[in-house]
Amino acid sequence: MEHVGFIGLGIMGARMAAVLRRAGFEVTVWNRTRARAEAWAAEHGGSVAATPSQLGERCDVIVSIVVDGAQVEQVLLGDGGVVEDARDGLLCIDMSTIAPAQARSIAAKLAERGAGFLDAPVTGSAPKAADGTLTTMVGGSDADLARGRAVLEALSETIVHVGPVGHGQTVKVLSNALAAANVTALAQALLVGRRAGVELERMVEVLPRSAGGSRMVDLKAAPMLNGDFTPLFKLEHLLKDVDLALDAGRELGVPFPAAATAGELLSAGVGRGLGEQDFAAVVEVLEGLAGVRLRD
Amino acid sequence: MEHVGFIGLGIMGARMAAVLRRAGFEVTVWNRTRARAEAWAAEHGGSVAATPSQLGERCDVIVSIVVDGAQVEQVLLGDGGVVEDARDGLLCIDMSTIAPAQARSIAAKLAERGAGFLDAPVTGSAPKAADGTLTTMVGGSDADLARGRAVLEALSETIVHVGPVGHGQTVKVLSNALAAANVTALAQALLVGRRAGVELERMVEVLPRSAGGSRMVDLKAAPMLNGDFTPLFKLEHLLKDVDLALDAGRELGVPFPAAATAGELLSAGVGRGLGEQDFAAVVEVLEGLAGVRLRD
Repeated sequence: MEHVGFIGLGIMGARMAAVLRRAGFEVTVWNRTRARAEAWAAEHGGSVAATPSQLGERCDVIVSIVVDGAQVEQVLLGDGGVVEDARDGLLCIDMSTIAPAQARSIAAKLAERGAGFLDAPVTGSAPKAADGTLTTMVGGSDADLARGRAVLEALSETIVHVGPVGHGQTVKVLSNALAAANVTALAQALLVGRRAGVELERMVEVLPRSAGGSRMVDLKAAPMLNGDFTPLFKLEHLLKDVDLALDAGRELGVPFPAAATAGELLSAGVGRGLGEQDFAAVVEVLEGLAGVRLRD
Repeated sequence: MEHVGFIGLGIMGARMAAVLRRAGFEVTVWNRTRARAEAWAAEHGGSVAATPSQLGERCDVIVSIVVDGAQVEQVLLGDGGVVEDARDGLLCIDMSTIAPAQARSIAAKLAERGAGFLDAPVTGSAPKAADGTLTTMVGGSDADLARGRAVLEALSETIVHVGPVGHGQTVKVLSNALAAANVTALAQALLVGRRAGVELERMVEVLPRSAGGSRMVDLKAAPMLNGDFTPLFKLEHLLKDVDLALDAGRELGVPFPAAATAGELLSAGVGRGLGEQDFAAVVEVLEGLAGVRLRD
């Protein structure tokens, strides 16, 4: 079985690396905060690398899931990065959400060093990461996907090969921008219902069966009603993805006004100090706008 | 079994009245265009009333599903309307989508004439109307709902009693406004993907499993990709519902910017002559804005 190097032990990454261990892969981890890597290895029985470059020396496949494109670039291509002393034929699978153009640029630089690359961002939050039931959107060549498939299958319920490098990211950021549009619209509809005196539990019962149903109704209506914003996916990270979708649209000259409006509301959420809470907390921005709260 | 008077044999109503016949109800129909009522009765074995008031004389329960609140008011309360010579204890179930405030006003006028009222708008388009598997949001008293339940159960897979009279309409127009927000956002995301060169069939495969998934993705992405705008629900009718949601929000002082933006796009669709097509045709407005089409 392949030796997997895993970079980034955040909410998603720690769970995904554990899934790979349970699936029988040898896993060596690296994390910017080393203490977190040590704790993960002690719990799950992997080893810890001192630098990303050590992963490149030792491993067949590298999985990265970090905060943004700058970090992906740093850990793969920077000083002490994965490719510094990499094995021939290394495959890097980046499962972070980053700009499509940056994924293409990273892939090109890795190719010069003989390394393959897949952009394989995921959807589904912490529980699906922990179960290995993520949905994974892959951009890259057929050959690279064939080499990475065993690792991706351990982590994913569904793998969709959406096109060449970069297209996984395009679909991912568009999906998250849609989620942002849908969740902010949901918060608005709930607030109108609330002010009208509708029993919101009944409304939330009927919405999933109605034309207005969405994953956001399924996943975020209850946290909004309960005021539970324990982060499954942080508001500031959703804002980052919306901005990536808007950048992609602007580069292409295609307007995405629904995402732009959602981005403004999320940005107001960051301004109100909600950035590290779950993105369902955006309802608080809309409560401020409406002058009414969802709960007493 | 009760004798049901049915008013309004449009796309939804003709199918729903047929479901009631198959469920064993005696059904007498009235339609503004009498020829359509005659044709329906010939096909399904019901009888035809000359006026809504004849239904009020003969029937136990009246179901109406017409285009707007003015028509509901006319057929129930106007000259030759249902209550003109109504039986004692008549129950009117209005399954149209109208303004919540107008539903309350109609209910009050019917109560003065001794008739009960439920606002029971539905979600689910023609196929679900034909199968009797609609989702029905009911506003009204427990007693009126108990009297109307047999009829509603024949038509519905799910019945949710969301509150007193008017609240069925509030939830319905909010659901449709959400649908309008979600479908216009979807069209925008598809157009960015299209311009980026993403294979849209793959994108549409992954979206339902992703954070951006919605009923609109499930129901309208394929028609948008195929350019098939055969009306299941007309664009001009969705615009009407969005306007009702906006009116409700404005009366209550709660802004609903996502619905307002969707309404502008739907309105542009009406301006382009798309009002009688399925509302998925709103993608053509966004194609105009983006200068790119979803298909070659």
